[in-house]
Amino acid sequence: MQIAPAFKAPPRLLMGPGPSNTAAEVLSAMSQPVVGHLDPVFVKMMEELKTMLRAVFLTSNEMTFPISGTGSAGMEFCFVNLVEPGDEVIVGVNGVFGTRMVDVAERCGARVTKVESGWGNIITPQQISEALRQVSKPKLVAIVHAETSTGALTPVEEISKLTHDAGALLLLDTVTSLGGCPVRIDEWNVDAVYSGTQKCLSCPPGLAPVSLNARAMEVARRRRTTVQSWYLDVNLLASYWGQERVYHHTAPISMNYALHAALRLVLEEGLENRWRRHKQNHLALKSALGAIGLDIVSQEGHQLWQLNAVRVPQDVDEAGVRKRLLNDFNIEVGAGLGPLKGKIWRVGLMGETSTRENVRLFLSAFCQVLNECGRKTDVKAALAAVE
Amino acid sequence: MQIAPAFKAPPRLLMGPGPSNTAAEVLSAMSQPVVGHLDPVFVKMMEELKTMLRAVFLTSNEMTFPISGTGSAGMEFCFVNLVEPGDEVIVGVNGVFGTRMVDVAERCGARVTKVESGWGNIITPQQISEALRQVSKPKLVAIVHAETSTGALTPVEEISKLTHDAGALLLLDTVTSLGGCPVRIDEWNVDAVYSGTQKCLSCPPGLAPVSLNARAMEVARRRRTTVQSWYLDVNLLASYWGQERVYHHTAPISMNYALHAALRLVLEEGLENRWRRHKQNHLALKSALGAIGLDIVSQEGHQLWQLNAVRVPQDVDEAGVRKRLLNDFNIEVGAGLGPLKGKIWRVGLMGETSTRENVRLFLSAFCQVLNECGRKTDVKAALAAVE
Repeated sequence: MQIAPAFKAPPRLLMGPGPSNTAAEVLSAMSQPVVGHLDPVFVKMMEELKTMLRAVFLTSNEMTFPISGTGSAGMEFCFVNLVEPGDEVIVGVNGVFGTRMVDVAERCGARVTKVESGWGNIITPQQISEALRQVSKPKLVAIVHAETSTGALTPVEEISKLTHDAGALLLLDTVTSLGGCPVRIDEWNVDAVYSGTQKCLSCPPGLAPVSLNARAMEVARRRRTTVQSWYLDVNLLASYWGQERVYHHTAPISMNYALHAALRLVLEEGLENRWRRHKQNHLALKSALGAIGLDIVSQEGHQLWQLNAVRVPQDVDEAGVRKRLLNDFNIEVGAGLGPLKGKIWRVGLMGETSTRENVRLFLSAFCQVLNECGRKTDVKAALAAVE
Repeated sequence: MQIAPAFKAPPRLLMGPGPSNTAAEVLSAMSQPVVGHLDPVFVKMMEELKTMLRAVFLTSNEMTFPISGTGSAGMEFCFVNLVEPGDEVIVGVNGVFGTRMVDVAERCGARVTKVESGWGNIITPQQISEALRQVSKPKLVAIVHAETSTGALTPVEEISKLTHDAGALLLLDTVTSLGGCPVRIDEWNVDAVYSGTQKCLSCPPGLAPVSLNARAMEVARRRRTTVQSWYLDVNLLASYWGQERVYHHTAPISMNYALHAALRLVLEEGLENRWRRHKQNHLALKSALGAIGLDIVSQEGHQLWQLNAVRVPQDVDEAGVRKRLLNDFNIEVGAGLGPLKGKIWRVGLMGETSTRENVRLFLSAFCQVLNECGRKTDVKAALAAVE
């Protein structure tokens, strides 16, 4: 039969690398009736979205809005608009998303210089400084702020200064960082930034918030060549998201409802409070992991609060543990990717998911599964360390 | 204050060029909790989506799935995968979407031959035949099946035969046709097709169903150059939507829930029944418009059932009528675009919106507004013509 049964989503506790759990307000916002993409009530909501996104990115950039695609579309948006064939681009590569940036930049015709660190480590200002010296006319430096594949947080301020001293633009991936730890676009002088909705903003996946400052917009406007993507051309998108409201594409209405509701929750909580909550729950989890002899593989001092790359102990079946957690406890955690495949579990504490209660729920289930795998694990010690 | 009030969507009757109204089942499907994009229950649903999309496209193409973007992303998906720099592409241009195809194809480096008809008219096989003779090595012929900007439906079968006789691929835009009138991908031998969710499938905007046959996939696989879009590269997408389930991007989970529910409703009604419903409500509206002295500008014999391009009578304020319908009756109709701006209203009867009751609701409101504009309009005659 061609007609599938109605889909019933199980109530997962989403503790992987995203999506994170979504507040009831966000889900119910999304179930409101659809309106037209040029309806005055929708246009007003678009303005509110832009204002709230600016508040979350800590920027006054006029060109701040959600791309109608997931986080990777946001990445592509930044590269296709800022890079032209032959441009020199420096990319920090310390995980999946830096690797992806290289691929996307090359598809735009960029000459890419990779600045590589081991997976789990950060990209240092020294590395960027050296690359900037080697490249004759660097146009763009691209860095992943929070590497979702490894759990490492690269500090941005010094890299930003070096980049601008060399006359280049700074592009920052904040897919996993935004809403979960400090992201200060104007203070850090970031020229272009993209994010996703499904991590620490706790909105379903489907949109990619982006922001370009005046310098980046000038580069996009003064291109020699046409932007290779019609769908992501900022010059066209500016007419729809700006004051002219020229029809470009049909915006994903319901996803914008969801983002509106999610941003309201972020701002109601307050950025500082939200960051603190992420930090505290990360520290609680880390301390509990320590109590049962487990550790986080990412570079000490630069570990993400929202994603914990937990080292898989020897003789434990990495995939088997994830499967048991999902099937018996409805808890999703992520697998390692690339060189970390089979070596880590990625335990996310993002947005709505980041609560003390969820840390405890995870630990109880996790210890039980480890015990069944034959690794003696003291759940009481783990839970005691959380208090 | 940065925090906007919660958004309350007004209950619009969506009778424009899309989005159309959405069934309660679809809205409630979307409000289910989010699961992970690699969760086995989601992967199973992806398979069901592919099966149901094949049933709706009337195709057995393996590569049939929704792109994570709106209809225009589906257009871009087809061009970036099938076209390489220097390729000869023939595009039928008889409205906004043919014009857009030219733009997208040129951004892929295509040498484009435009086959133009007046807005409101169809593209004829004779025109395509002539273009195919003039172009030395045509790779692709691209046609908009249902031009949403003009209300004209271009027949595809003969054009398909001519295209294949010349050794080219046929690309078809079915954004507005799919689910509202016959679309027979395999029978018509269409090599690549894209659609949108927010027209006659009555799902919120946000996804673009696409389908490529084996011939098109072979062209995509054997490219000399890398696909210029990472986000839309079918070779990468095939690994996520195929059996390997390699992580590519985070699929918009909730939108896929919505599409799953919407496709169930389409198939439960049955394609033939759904097409007949669209036809009958179009004929009812057309007959009522005739009774009050109004007509449809699109070419007679090729008028869309799902979108009616109603000629604005002289001395009537086109925008004023739309505004009154929206503000006083919660009814959205569309404006004309390009050369038809100010000359037509676009009255959609798509998917859930296409009911006899909605035709009556529209006529009552429309006649009242026209009367207030000083154009004597007999609402009773209009309604009588609907019976």
